Amino acid sequence: MMEKVPYIPQKSQETNIIESAMQRVETIMKDVVASDVKVLTEASKHILQAGGKRVRPQLVLLSYAAFDGEDFEEAAPIAAALELVHTASVVHDDINDHGVIRRGRPSVNAIWGRTFALLTGDFLFTKVYELMAPYGELNVIFADATVALVEGETLQASAVKESNFTRQVYMDIIARKTAALFKAGAMLGASLANAESDQIEAMGRYGFNIGLAFQIIDDILDLIGDEEELGKNSGQDLKQGRGIAAVDNNGDNATNVLDSVKAKLVDNIETATAQAQHLVELAIDELSVLTDSPAKSQLIDLANKIINRTH
Amino acid sequence: MMEKVPYIPQKSQETNIIESAMQRVETIMKDVVASDVKVLTEASKHILQAGGKRVRPQLVLLSYAAFDGEDFEEAAPIAAALELVHTASVVHDDINDHGVIRRGRPSVNAIWGRTFALLTGDFLFTKVYELMAPYGELNVIFADATVALVEGETLQASAVKESNFTRQVYMDIIARKTAALFKAGAMLGASLANAESDQIEAMGRYGFNIGLAFQIIDDILDLIGDEEELGKNSGQDLKQGRGIAAVDNNGDNATNVLDSVKAKLVDNIETATAQAQHLVELAIDELSVLTDSPAKSQLIDLANKIINRTH
Repeated sequence: MMEKVPYIPQKSQETNIIESAMQRVETIMKDVVASDVKVLTEASKHILQAGGKRVRPQLVLLSYAAFDGEDFEEAAPIAAALELVHTASVVHDDINDHGVIRRGRPSVNAIWGRTFALLTGDFLFTKVYELMAPYGELNVIFADATVALVEGETLQASAVKESNFTRQVYMDIIARKTAALFKAGAMLGASLANAESDQIEAMGRYGFNIGLAFQIIDDILDLIGDEEELGKNSGQDLKQGRGIAAVDNNGDNATNVLDSVKAKLVDNIETATAQAQHLVELAIDELSVLTDSPAKSQLIDLANKIINRTH
Repeated sequence: MMEKVPYIPQKSQETNIIESAMQRVETIMKDVVASDVKVLTEASKHILQAGGKRVRPQLVLLSYAAFDGEDFEEAAPIAAALELVHTASVVHDDINDHGVIRRGRPSVNAIWGRTFALLTGDFLFTKVYELMAPYGELNVIFADATVALVEGETLQASAVKESNFTRQVYMDIIARKTAALFKAGAMLGASLANAESDQIEAMGRYGFNIGLAFQIIDDILDLIGDEEELGKNSGQDLKQGRGIAAVDNNGDNATNVLDSVKAKLVDNIETATAQAQHLVELAIDELSVLTDSPAKSQLIDLANKIINRTH
């Protein structure tokens, strides 16, 4: 009865390892926002507990596993930091956009007001920095991505203000505000696992391309949401003059010309969907630097899920 | 005529070395905020060019020099990062306080509006991170200080909201929002110069104490400003229910009870001035870990100047 049963790795082991590491990521995020300044902890936990797709930390962990990384205790704080920088930007976005609902719950600014929302975003940024402090050179990759994130948000605010939403401007915005963090995630995982520099670069292109695709699909979903019929729910982007809806609007105020731009929107959505599909294919091609593994399969699945999602 | 004149170090040489390093700090800050997103660069340069006392970077450089640090090219980016994190917090403060004048110029939010001011503050935070990325373990000291800074700002906003400005709360606020960065500055310089851990701790206490004194004097100056007579200019703190003016106000709204709190203010200012003087003495005592040098003399001067300033 006391005889040890030999441990046999299951086919699904790799998946389980990442699931467990993702739980660790949640714990790290929850723990790191603990502060005796209660409002910061409460507001941070509020936004974190609202969930989210957690694509960015998955990218770090899967990319790490794909290069035979095994110490998920070391990888998890990086994954947590990447999700936190995204979360910080979400909190600040909601201030600027007067967003009152985020992830199905009231936004931080809706509950705590603008001042505490601004400080909560700042707090999350400093916690990112705290988590990453022990990781030496990886901070260079991380810092580049956070700079790009803020630049992307700023380009978006400028484009809205100036009604200058050409396709080129749109692509530049989403490259910085979204794809840069996805790229960083894939590169960070690979770097931590000591991948070769050309492999790290390939993973960066994988992350970058699915990041672009992710944001394009996000913007399409913002327009057509659950409602299957176009125009039933015009969404926040349309109201705020940004995203796919605003591309090439030539300075027209989108809210006042809703009917006349419907045909244009259908065109834009079809074009954008095809583009997202193409970007995912390009991303998956980059994974040829990897040998077959459960992690590689999951990276392929992750890319495909980005296209085939409804929320 | 061609004979080389032997180079004789002047008594003021150390001072000159720091002056030149401080110019390097200005150049680094100016260069690092360059971005193709023009509004970020313009707004960042606007606030940087408005000047400021630059006490934090001086602390880094003097502490570094005091432990025989010689590579100011390596030390200057840390000093620049410390000034930038302060600058970022100033930009965000002005959003929360609706500040329209900063350092004698219109604030960033007064010129560019709240959205771009928020993003400029975020941008400066990310640039701090970019500058510090190559500095390994020093990031731990730096991250701790930035967390404390945001916590201090949040405690202040909470205390204003709840009219709960006891002396203890006030000291906790200024310890985090100001003294933590001063402490970090002195520790960073010493650490970079490979000082012993007890020396680094002593420098931390030096920085912390002059940080407290600095903020106390700042709050007194906010109350009495250029005007030598108390009450002529009640200042921003009084209006906003914070700082020395608000200590122990027991929930009264300071703007409505100006006359009745004047006597209390005089008491508070006298007590606070004596406390600041005492803190500077404690700080200077910590410098006994240093051998005599021009840098040590300048650290003593810096501490004394904090008390004897009028702006």
